[in-house]
Amino acid sequence: MQTINFENPIFVTYAIASALLVLKVMGQGWMTVYRMLRSNSGLASPEDLKAGPINRNPDPSQLEVNDYVDRSRRMHRNDLENIPAFWIAGLLFVLANPPLILAQFLIYGFVAARAAHFVAYSTRQTHEVRATFYTIGSLVVIYMALHALFVLLM
Amino acid sequence: MQTINFENPIFVTYAIASALLVLKVMGQGWMTVYRMLRSNSGLASPEDLKAGPINRNPDPSQLEVNDYVDRSRRMHRNDLENIPAFWIAGLLFVLANPPLILAQFLIYGFVAARAAHFVAYSTRQTHEVRATFYTIGSLVVIYMALHALFVLLM
Amino acid sequence: MQTINFENPIFVTYAIASALLVLKVMGQGWMTVYRMLRSNSGLASPEDLKAGPINRNPDPSQLEVNDYVDRSRRMHRNDLENIPAFWIAGLLFVLANPPLILAQFLIYGFVAARAAHFVAYSTRQTHEVRATFYTIGSLVVIYMALHALFVLLM
Repeated sequence: MQTINFENPIFVTYAIASALLVLKVMGQGWMTVYRMLRSNSGLASPEDLKAGPINRNPDPSQLEVNDYVDRSRRMHRNDLENIPAFWIAGLLFVLANPPLILAQFLIYGFVAARAAHFVAYSTRQTHEVRATFYTIGSLVVIYMALHALFVLLM
Repeated sequence: MQTINFENPIFVTYAIASALLVLKVMGQGWMTVYRMLRSNSGLASPEDLKAGPINRNPDPSQLEVNDYVDRSRRMHRNDLENIPAFWIAGLLFVLANPPLILAQFLIYGFVAARAAHFVAYSTRQTHEVRATFYTIGSLVVIYMALHALFVLLM
Repeated sequence: MQTINFENPIFVTYAIASALLVLKVMGQGWMTVYRMLRSNSGLASPEDLKAGPINRNPDPSQLEVNDYVDRSRRMHRNDLENIPAFWIAGLLFVLANPPLILAQFLIYGFVAARAAHFVAYSTRQTHEVRATFYTIGSLVVIYMALHALFVLLM
């Protein structure tokens, strides 16, 4: 029976990966802010056209969709479609008491796949490259959920 | 005092439902991929117009919004608006030590409501039908959070 | 070593905040529903134009983006970009056994920052005001993840 604490090496693996992925998700928000400020475009709300420290020379075109900023929003959305599911699937997988080496392989594999997806998406690699890393991450999450279900139902 | 492990039947109820919902969320991503490939449209990024195994005959119209593909993205968004909140509300509810029969009713009720919402949305049922299943799922999550808060604050 | 149960005051702090944030996220969905019904616009799917109890006089313009309704959807998206990351970062932070006073300051600070962000966004305050509350919430989540990582890796 596995327990949730920092003395269980399987949980520690999960906790390190989960904390790194928190930084990834929050960092994606800051990448959007950075791109919005740097390009002075891609604003989301009409009131963002009021002049102020963030926007010294407002112009209605700043509300138009801009790939440079919108790409970071799409990457963020892709994170939200995958990472919260990892957080809960990983927790259930840890409680199913898998072999440590399998847990490390899958959990760090997910982190690596999402890091590679970030690089591929932000540098505009082909759809095939981006889809490959998406697939690896997705299969890890699906496997962890199935593994937990199998242990729960057997 | 409830504990988080696979020997606690209330937690097992929650864990089975949560793992099924992981598969639901990840599956929604694959439904979008399937619809994108099948209709050869609804692409998200400009670089997806490069010719390659995924896209043999690129055309700029493939970047336009297409209801067949966008419907799956809206369903995915609706999942993200409801399922992660279920994961945490359910965990807090389990820790509040509810009667097992109540936990089973609410937790499996949420899974059933979301499955019905999936069917209603993908088969284009009326707004009333879709809204009914959304409402049932939403009320379960709200109830679980209020139940936990009540126990925490009493 | 910290445990996850309602007798641990650090976990109780986290659990109260997490349950309140569940209500915030679910409530944002209902704010969108309310605004959609009240303005009779901002519908998301073509089939929502079928006449019925929700929509007595359908008109194609109801599918157009409408700031009154879309603002609530943007607020919801902003929640999804921040609150699930809080749920997991907060859990890892609690397990890292921080001083109770620090946990209360950060965790209730996050709730207050998100409440202020809600008010600022819904009342169309300037981008600077909204960004300030977003930043406070984001820094709390980032700090909690770094704190947990530090304890895990030391």
